[in-house]
Amino acid sequence: MTHASTTNKTAVGTVTTIPGGIATPRGFRAAGVSAGIKANNKPDLALLVSDAPAAAAASFTTNRVQAAPVLVSREALARSGGTARAIVVNSGCANACTGDEGLRHAREMASETARLVNCPVEHVLVASTGVIGVALPIEKVRTGLSLAHRQLAAEQGPAAARAIMTTDPFPKESAVELDLASAGLGKILIGGMAKGSGMIEPMLATMLAFVTTDAAVPRSLLDRALREAVEDTFNAITVDGECSTNDSVMLLANGASGVTVDDSTYGAFVAGLTSVCHELALGIVRGGEGATKLVKVIVTGAASAVEARRAAKAIANSPLVKTAIHGGDPNWGRLIAVAGRAGVELELSRAKVSIGSTVLFEDGRPHDEAAPEAAEYLKGKELEVSVDLGSGRSESTVWTCDLSAEYVRINADYRT
Amino acid sequence: MTHASTTNKTAVGTVTTIPGGIATPRGFRAAGVSAGIKANNKPDLALLVSDAPAAAAASFTTNRVQAAPVLVSREALARSGGTARAIVVNSGCANACTGDEGLRHAREMASETARLVNCPVEHVLVASTGVIGVALPIEKVRTGLSLAHRQLAAEQGPAAARAIMTTDPFPKESAVELDLASAGLGKILIGGMAKGSGMIEPMLATMLAFVTTDAAVPRSLLDRALREAVEDTFNAITVDGECSTNDSVMLLANGASGVTVDDSTYGAFVAGLTSVCHELALGIVRGGEGATKLVKVIVTGAASAVEARRAAKAIANSPLVKTAIHGGDPNWGRLIAVAGRAGVELELSRAKVSIGSTVLFEDGRPHDEAAPEAAEYLKGKELEVSVDLGSGRSESTVWTCDLSAEYVRINADYRT
Repeated sequence: MTHASTTNKTAVGTVTTIPGGIATPRGFRAAGVSAGIKANNKPDLALLVSDAPAAAAASFTTNRVQAAPVLVSREALARSGGTARAIVVNSGCANACTGDEGLRHAREMASETARLVNCPVEHVLVASTGVIGVALPIEKVRTGLSLAHRQLAAEQGPAAARAIMTTDPFPKESAVELDLASAGLGKILIGGMAKGSGMIEPMLATMLAFVTTDAAVPRSLLDRALREAVEDTFNAITVDGECSTNDSVMLLANGASGVTVDDSTYGAFVAGLTSVCHELALGIVRGGEGATKLVKVIVTGAASAVEARRAAKAIANSPLVKTAIHGGDPNWGRLIAVAGRAGVELELSRAKVSIGSTVLFEDGRPHDEAAPEAAEYLKGKELEVSVDLGSGRSESTVWTCDLSAEYVRINADYRT
Repeated sequence: MTHASTTNKTAVGTVTTIPGGIATPRGFRAAGVSAGIKANNKPDLALLVSDAPAAAAASFTTNRVQAAPVLVSREALARSGGTARAIVVNSGCANACTGDEGLRHAREMASETARLVNCPVEHVLVASTGVIGVALPIEKVRTGLSLAHRQLAAEQGPAAARAIMTTDPFPKESAVELDLASAGLGKILIGGMAKGSGMIEPMLATMLAFVTTDAAVPRSLLDRALREAVEDTFNAITVDGECSTNDSVMLLANGASGVTVDDSTYGAFVAGLTSVCHELALGIVRGGEGATKLVKVIVTGAASAVEARRAAKAIANSPLVKTAIHGGDPNWGRLIAVAGRAGVELELSRAKVSIGSTVLFEDGRPHDEAAPEAAEYLKGKELEVSVDLGSGRSESTVWTCDLSAEYVRINADYRT
């Protein structure tokens, strides 16, 4: 996921994207190894260690069925009061719906890591991704952990990012430098890695994201910052609307930069954190299995923020919309019809539907004559579609991908 | 949709399936013609006429965006107090999101039909299915109507069933004879036709169903009977979870049998009506584009009926579940994971997951060793999957189809 460096000045501080990932911030080391959990010998075990105890915040799946590693990590954070030294992640097995044995395995992953890193077991967070209901080969994890621990290095972030992949077509890393010189402070680094879901395999390809920073951040601010950043990034993307038993976003702040984030620099920190999360989240969407286009869905004119998000998610998850976009069919009727069934206020006479900047429905009337212009626009790779619900002033943006593949193509051609 | 005749004795009366459709009940005539609305010259206009004014009940889409024919039919029923002589249906154009012009066209369809049939305009119901946002070629409809009117006959039910198809792979008709001899009454006929949705084109392939009976049924009972029958048939199926701007179910009772349904025979009437609706609804699922299997999803142990239905629908709409079933993969983890994200009570330690009669998760533990048995079962064409939420005593059954096609097959093989 290479991209041109961008710079974004906030009220306090300047955010600049830089190459890097999870081990880019000072005081973090990472490793990614092949432990043999996956049948194909691909990397499947990642380890991240902070040299010093770090403040930790996390956001977990809302699924009622929570995988053992999610339960164990929640427990660790509660017991440590939000401190962590290490995160251990395996791919190839979700360790979900595995009963008491699964819990035991997740605890063993943590305790073995704690032993190697020499820290309290509650300072280790655990994550897993892969098939549900299959036992974790714990001996392989143990052996792999020992190998990973020996390979820990600041340069091994990319290896870690590869080791957490399942059906992902490419690893996802992102980093920014936050320059707080204007506040009389130094520079903070924020880095992260994530894995996404194949188009139709999110349960096997859980959304996991890990973000580090060398800023010192008080726990209350860290929690708030993570919630804010996640809301408009990881919570604003969808590949197919599923929510896994293992989804986790974890954030560690170890203070190695010597810079402490406080109320005056909080906004800049959130901007930097959001930038990293945004890039990782968009990487997940771009990496949706078979995805050929990144689609920004903008809903405006909603009666409330909740309804705006609900309508945007409904559109972003609609196979109708996604197949039309894949096929380059400016079938705007599907956009308004999906909004109509989303359970939100919608005033058809004031509603508006656009594909790119082309308005296709407004004032209760279709502008189907503009369809060829919209069809031309849909040949692009990064697209925007927008629906104004004509019912209020709230808005929401979410990102999704198209639905490709042969069976979809057949239907995308229906209209022509 | 041929099927063996089945007989079902109710407390009062016996329901026997018979060959037939919309014009099988006495006093109804139908026609299906090619009006040129579709580009390919296929039949696209259906007309149904009752010789005498019939009591009418209907159920319409809950989409906030309602197509012009839906608005016009609602209006007609309100004005007539629930009486109808005719139903006119076109395929090839949904007449949705077409503004004032669309409303005018739907009204013209009704008034032209009323002129031909010689009845008040509010005694005509209108339905359309096809592309959204495109103007209805009203002159073609007018010419087609005149042709259809000349062809009206009790034998033309099959032609009508063909004329309402869009992406449907086969027409859907069903009929039953309800023998009320045990109540000292005669025989009632109930017949119907429906059209379904292609897998990913439900907006272009609206769910429409029309049912007739020669019973005389008081309007209050007719409304109640339709609501009851629809709840466990058309409202209990899903192809892809979308809800169109045009979905309509219409029921006419013309009394031509000389038998009047009252409180004592109501239960038998609902049984007969439900049988017809059930058969039509399952036909829609079987005809889901690319569908190769019919899947009955049973949720038990729910905290409430609403939660039972919600969980069943979530499972039935999950691309994960549907692709696994298509691929013959007994991936029970997806069933429980989808139930977990459905927003319902779920007590994992008391939950249970079965594919056919094979239990794959129970007492908080996987029984993955039974997976080969479940895989063998999944080779069948008519399947059952069940999830006990372990949270109460409510249950719900819905029907869905698998998700086929090349891109799905790739992922259905993921686990092996």
